[in-house]
Amino acid sequence: MKILVDVFGGDNAPDEIIEGALLALKERKDFSVELVGDSEIISEKLKNLNLDQNFTDRITILHAKDVISCEEEPTLAIRRKPESSICVAFKELKENEQASAFVSAGSTGAVLVGATLKLGRISGINRPALCPTIPTLIEGKNVFLTDSGANADCKSINLCQFALMASIYAKTLGVENPKVALLSNGTEDEKGNLLIHETLPLLKEMKEINFVGNVEGRDILSGEYDIVISDGFSGNIALKSMEGAINTIFTALRQGIYGSFKGKIGGALLKGTFQKLKDRLDYNNKGGAIFLGVKKPVVKAHGSSKRVAIKNAILQAVLFSESKVCEKIENSLINSEQL
Amino acid sequence: MKILVDVFGGDNAPDEIIEGALLALKERKDFSVELVGDSEIISEKLKNLNLDQNFTDRITILHAKDVISCEEEPTLAIRRKPESSICVAFKELKENEQASAFVSAGSTGAVLVGATLKLGRISGINRPALCPTIPTLIEGKNVFLTDSGANADCKSINLCQFALMASIYAKTLGVENPKVALLSNGTEDEKGNLLIHETLPLLKEMKEINFVGNVEGRDILSGEYDIVISDGFSGNIALKSMEGAINTIFTALRQGIYGSFKGKIGGALLKGTFQKLKDRLDYNNKGGAIFLGVKKPVVKAHGSSKRVAIKNAILQAVLFSESKVCEKIENSLINSEQL
Repeated sequence: MKILVDVFGGDNAPDEIIEGALLALKERKDFSVELVGDSEIISEKLKNLNLDQNFTDRITILHAKDVISCEEEPTLAIRRKPESSICVAFKELKENEQASAFVSAGSTGAVLVGATLKLGRISGINRPALCPTIPTLIEGKNVFLTDSGANADCKSINLCQFALMASIYAKTLGVENPKVALLSNGTEDEKGNLLIHETLPLLKEMKEINFVGNVEGRDILSGEYDIVISDGFSGNIALKSMEGAINTIFTALRQGIYGSFKGKIGGALLKGTFQKLKDRLDYNNKGGAIFLGVKKPVVKAHGSSKRVAIKNAILQAVLFSESKVCEKIENSLINSEQL
Repeated sequence: MKILVDVFGGDNAPDEIIEGALLALKERKDFSVELVGDSEIISEKLKNLNLDQNFTDRITILHAKDVISCEEEPTLAIRRKPESSICVAFKELKENEQASAFVSAGSTGAVLVGATLKLGRISGINRPALCPTIPTLIEGKNVFLTDSGANADCKSINLCQFALMASIYAKTLGVENPKVALLSNGTEDEKGNLLIHETLPLLKEMKEINFVGNVEGRDILSGEYDIVISDGFSGNIALKSMEGAINTIFTALRQGIYGSFKGKIGGALLKGTFQKLKDRLDYNNKGGAIFLGVKKPVVKAHGSSKRVAIKNAILQAVLFSESKVCEKIENSLINSEQL
């Protein structure tokens, strides 16, 4: 299995990306990586690391002279920069059977557009969806918020497909009979906008999923649900609103703690607890968001990822690939009466 | 000025509602309240309180034998229960010039439907909007998230009207040149769903407001914005997602603190800081959400409100009424070229 890694995506490229790849190779011995980007720079970096043969045998380089930045309009950038690391990687992923998956910490928009245009959707999937792993109140239990931002406008068929894809993904990660809920402005069936009213009865009829009804924003993190389905606009707002609220609390706590002597002592005693909690609830630490619905596994690591997050994203791609999620989605669609 | 108060709405009715009204009457001497609900029960309760004449002179009772519960479908309940406290109050508010405003901690849906159907919209307003006061990271600074749940499906004209109404409201509360932002899945103009793409250029052209562009979910609480505009579906999801994240943090912190001896000591030292922060960030403590766009001031207190929250909601209604927000909205619409 060969995982393509975008060496020139993200705030800490290229050094932390390369180090992350090495950590991943160290942790599992049964795959190789192909580092995508300027081959001269990558070769030089690898040379300076004085790696032993165990590593070098499992690393190849795929040259790409261009880089797409986060400031560029994704669709234009994908069209105008065929020699960017993202475009070169997707071309390789599409054409080379040996290439199993792609990991990038670069522009989310460019990765999504590139995956859809260059790699292509699974036959029958109208809209691929971005699916981050979000830690919940119950330690060790995560929720998959699908779609968290790839499709600002959705139809009910898209939401049903998100539910199917995320269920298949969750099952391959060991979640038994994953509970699927639909994000709405109230739990009652009557709540929701037109899209929710259209989607709810369709989800209820789907035999392939364990649909449990509507969920409100306040219960996404409760740990009660394995999968929360949403259009990409509302899903993105939910995700970022939670992120903003969590940041607000920690900033305000810091202010409160430094405001008094008693607070400083208490804060010092709780420093470890705060840091652990902050790390635990930060979905950016959970590796990458996977992109469900394209032909091969694509993992989008957070732009600020350092080596450990990159390692996690690469190992996530390995797991994503070996559990054959894409093939299972395709088969499930063929057998589905509704989708 | 006479404020109608729904004595039979909310989890703590009727006792906490009556006590809240008394607290409000104590704090300001320039208004009276009319307690709406079963007159026999209310009279009995008042009698048992042995109030002096300063109070009794400023309290009247408006009989309503029915109550609408939160479990009832709002539109049906408003139609079928004309003698409920909510319906009776709105009839009085519409017909009696002396009645200035209405406060209820009852069913949000029933209050919104009742306000629209029984009291009526301001001429020219297509959709009234729910506007809670949300505390931000900057102490003492709030943000008005409009609409936070009254209209699940909106058109761009509705969002423009929300921006106008919330700006007028914020100004009457002393916010100078309130900054208005549009809730989207990214700050760039290209981000957003179809509704956002349609609305953005319209908001940019509005001379009546200080529009500053798109805002992401993660920045709602930053204190950078006075007003965040949204359709009621996404606004509700943002509001409840933030609420859920805040609750998750405090629950997880408690777990972390009680997990070790050091944690317990640190927790004891920071107890005051935690409680203060929790109270400060809880938008339910900020009185009620106002309902913008109906003919007279309507304040929806949180269902779990106790006396202090009810007092705050009543004083908010007094302020809302005396600052003539409804009249200003109507005049502004008459003078607007766009709306």
